Amino acid sequence: MIVFAKNVVTLDASRKIIRDAYIKVSGNVITETGERKNLTGQLEDEIVDASSLTLIPGFVQTHIHLCQTLFRGMADDLELLDWLQLRIFPYENAHNRDSLKASVRLGLNELIKGGTTTILDMGTLRNQDVVFEELISSGMRAFAGKCMMDSNSLFPSFRNDTKAELEETYRLAKEFHFKNERVGYGFAPRFALSCTYELLCETAEMKKDFPGTVMHTHASENKGEIEAVRKLYGKENIDFLDSTGLLGDSCVLAHCIHLNDDEIKIIRKRDTAISHCPSSNLKLGSGIANIPKYLKEGIKVSIGADGAPCNNNLSALTEARLAALLQKPFHGPTSMDAFTVLKLATLDGARALGLDSVTGSIEPGKKADFILIDINNYNKGLNESDEGICSNIVYAASDSDIAYTFIDGKCVYQKGVKEVYDQEELLADAKNQKNKLPGRV
Amino acid sequence: MIVFAKNVVTLDASRKIIRDAYIKVSGNVITETGERKNLTGQLEDEIVDASSLTLIPGFVQTHIHLCQTLFRGMADDLELLDWLQLRIFPYENAHNRDSLKASVRLGLNELIKGGTTTILDMGTLRNQDVVFEELISSGMRAFAGKCMMDSNSLFPSFRNDTKAELEETYRLAKEFHFKNERVGYGFAPRFALSCTYELLCETAEMKKDFPGTVMHTHASENKGEIEAVRKLYGKENIDFLDSTGLLGDSCVLAHCIHLNDDEIKIIRKRDTAISHCPSSNLKLGSGIANIPKYLKEGIKVSIGADGAPCNNNLSALTEARLAALLQKPFHGPTSMDAFTVLKLATLDGARALGLDSVTGSIEPGKKADFILIDINNYNKGLNESDEGICSNIVYAASDSDIAYTFIDGKCVYQKGVKEVYDQEELLADAKNQKNKLPGRV
Repeated sequence: MIVFAKNVVTLDASRKIIRDAYIKVSGNVITETGERKNLTGQLEDEIVDASSLTLIPGFVQTHIHLCQTLFRGMADDLELLDWLQLRIFPYENAHNRDSLKASVRLGLNELIKGGTTTILDMGTLRNQDVVFEELISSGMRAFAGKCMMDSNSLFPSFRNDTKAELEETYRLAKEFHFKNERVGYGFAPRFALSCTYELLCETAEMKKDFPGTVMHTHASENKGEIEAVRKLYGKENIDFLDSTGLLGDSCVLAHCIHLNDDEIKIIRKRDTAISHCPSSNLKLGSGIANIPKYLKEGIKVSIGADGAPCNNNLSALTEARLAALLQKPFHGPTSMDAFTVLKLATLDGARALGLDSVTGSIEPGKKADFILIDINNYNKGLNESDEGICSNIVYAASDSDIAYTFIDGKCVYQKGVKEVYDQEELLADAKNQKNKLPGRV
Repeated sequence: MIVFAKNVVTLDASRKIIRDAYIKVSGNVITETGERKNLTGQLEDEIVDASSLTLIPGFVQTHIHLCQTLFRGMADDLELLDWLQLRIFPYENAHNRDSLKASVRLGLNELIKGGTTTILDMGTLRNQDVVFEELISSGMRAFAGKCMMDSNSLFPSFRNDTKAELEETYRLAKEFHFKNERVGYGFAPRFALSCTYELLCETAEMKKDFPGTVMHTHASENKGEIEAVRKLYGKENIDFLDSTGLLGDSCVLAHCIHLNDDEIKIIRKRDTAISHCPSSNLKLGSGIANIPKYLKEGIKVSIGADGAPCNNNLSALTEARLAALLQKPFHGPTSMDAFTVLKLATLDGARALGLDSVTGSIEPGKKADFILIDINNYNKGLNESDEGICSNIVYAASDSDIAYTFIDGKCVYQKGVKEVYDQEELLADAKNQKNKLPGRV
C-alpha cells in the first residue's frame, strides 16, 4: 500500500516533517517514507490518495476504562468518593457480559474515530474475556487486564478473595497475553487501597512469568487516598507501591498528581511511566500534576482520557490540548509546546508501554499505526511551518477532523465511508443495555 | 415555523427542560413552546422535524476578535508581550480590507457552525466598516466596534491620534449602531495601556449619545499590565478604569484574572460584566480567574473564545467545558456544574450585553436564536435526566454535533446541507490573503 499525504509528521528522532510525502506499507509494516518526487518503482500497490491531509502516528492512550463508557453523563459534578461509591462501583458491579460488551464497543468506536490506535485499558472485576474478545475483533492495539480488587471499604460487595483474584488474573494472562499479536496483558490492581499488600506483591511476582506484559494502576490521584495509605502502611504512596515490587520499566501509574520529591526520584529510578489524565484530574477536582517537572526529571509521561464518566470524552486531541494549556499559567506560555505534547500523545505513550520499537512514530520498520487529519477544516492549516502544523493539530484540531485511522496496516475507520461498528446498532444496543443497568444495581 | 425537538433546554427561570417538545416561531420571534402532545391548530407552517435532537439557546460569546482569525497557528507558545509585539500587532497592522474581510468571514463561519448566535467583537484599528458589513450579511447577532488605540509603546506604529480615534469611532457608531436590527455598536478601547486617559474618558462620554451600545475592553489579564497601570496612574486597574467613567451596566471587561477585593466590589457596584476566556487565559499563561467567587459576589459572568491565535478555536462548547473543569481543582468537583456553565454560555452572555429580553433563552417573546445538537452521537445522550442532558452538552458535545443554527428566526447553518459561505472559496480566499500578509508586515 502507498499513502500520499500533504505532510507526514514522523515524530522520529530528527522531528522531521516530510512535505508532499508518501509512505509505503507492506503487510502491517511501514517500509518506506519520503517525498513523493523521490518515489521510484511501479505504483502497482493499493493507493490511498490523501494528498490534502496530514499523516501522523496514531495516538497512544495509556489510561482508559472501556468498561465505564456506558456510564458517561451518569456521574457528574460529584465528589470523588461519592463518584466511586454511589456511581462507579455500583455500576461496574452491575455489569453483565452484554452490558460490558456494549460499553467496550462504545469506547472503542469513539477511540478509533478519534485517532487512537493503542490503549492501555483497565477492565472491571468480572468478565474480562469480553474485553479481550472485543479488543481483538475491533483491530485496536492494546494492553488490557482484569481490574483486581480484594479490598473495598467504600462498596464492600465489589471485591473478590485474594486467591480468586490472583487465579483469575493468571488464567487471563495465560490465555490472552499476545494470543493476538496486537493485544497483550496489562496487570491491573486498581489502586493501593483496593488491594491487599499480599495481592500487590503476588501480582508483581506473577508479571515476571509473562514477558512483555505491562503493570497498570492508579496512584496519588487524591490527597485522601495518600493520607489513607500513609495511615495504613506508614509510607508515602509511591514508596509503598515500590515496596510491593510493582514499579518497573513496564509499569504505568495513572495520575500521579500529588508526589513529593522522594517519590519522583523513585519513579525515575524505576523507569516507571506516568499517565497524565488532565480532563479527569480537573473534573474530579483532583488537582494538576506538575508535568513539566516530571519531564525535566526524565520521567516517561504519556496521556490518557481515563473513563467516560470523568472526562466525558475519550478524545486524545482533547487531552493533548488540555495537557498543553493547563501548565502554562504555572510554567509560562512557552512550556508544554505543541511538539512536546504531540510526542506525549504518540511516541511517549508507546515508550510507556514498551512499544517504542513497534508504534508511536512513522518510520520504516514500525507497524503501520497512523491517522490522517484534515487540518484544512476552517483555516486550521494556514500556517504550514513545522510549528504551525504541530500547533494546528494540538491546539485546534478535533476528532471530527480525523479522516482515516489505520492500525497494523489496516484501515479501521474512514470518515463517512467505513466504521468499526454499525453506528445505529451500536447506539441501540447501548441504550438497551444502559436501561437495564439500574435494575441490577 | 414549527420546530420539533426531542428536548428543549429553555434556560428560563424555572430551568425547565421540555421533553418531546415543539417551539413555534413567527417571523423572528418565538411565540410558543410546549410538549408536542399539547400542540393545537393546523400544521400549515414550515416544519423542522428535529425530533431526535436537543434544542438549546444559541451561544453568546462576549469576547471575540474576528480580525485575528487569519492568524491562527501563527503565534503559539509565546510570552504575552512577544505574542503582542512580534505577532498580533504587526499582523493586525498589516491588514487591508481584503485580508480583514477574509479573517472576519473565517471567524463567523466557525462561530455559526459551532452554535454561536451572538457575539461581542473587538475590531482592529482600521477598516471597521468591513466588519460591520460582514456581520450584517452573515446573519450573526452582534455588538462590534473599532479597536481604539492612541498609545502603543510595544509597537509604536500601530496607533492613531486621540482626536482621529474619537472621530472615527463617533462616525462608525453613528453609521452602524442598529443600522441593522441585529448589529449594535460596542465601543472598544483596547485596554488601559493602549489608550490615553483622555481617550477613555471621552469614549465613556460618547457612549451616552448612543443608547443600547456596549462598552468593551480588556482588563487585568496580566500581572505586568496591572503593574504598569499602577506605575502610570497610581491606581489599581479597575479603580483606574472606573475613574474614566468606562464601567457600567453595559460594559464588558474581558479576562479579569487578577482582581483584588476592592476591584471586585467596584465591578459589582457598577453592574459591569466579566467575559471569562479560559482557553486564552491558559494558553497565554495569564492565570485562572476565580469565577466561582465572582458568581458568588453577584457579578455577571459570561464566556468568550477571544481570538483564534490564543485559543486556537472559536468554539463556545470548548470554552464551556473548560470553564467548568478548570475551577474544580480549586473549588471542588461540585463547583461550576453543567447547568451553571450552560447558563454562562447563553443567558448570562445575553445579560452581559443587555440583551436578556432579546435572546439567551427559549421563551415566547424572545428572538428565535437557537441551535439543535445531536447528543446521540457516540452515547452522549444515554442519560436523559435533566442533569444528564446538561452534562452531555457541556462536558461531552463538540462543534461537530451541532446540526442546525438559527439566528433571528432564520436557519443560517444546517450540517451537511447549508453553509454560511461556500467552504472551498472561503478557504482559498483565506489562504490567498494569509500568504499576502507577511509582505505587508
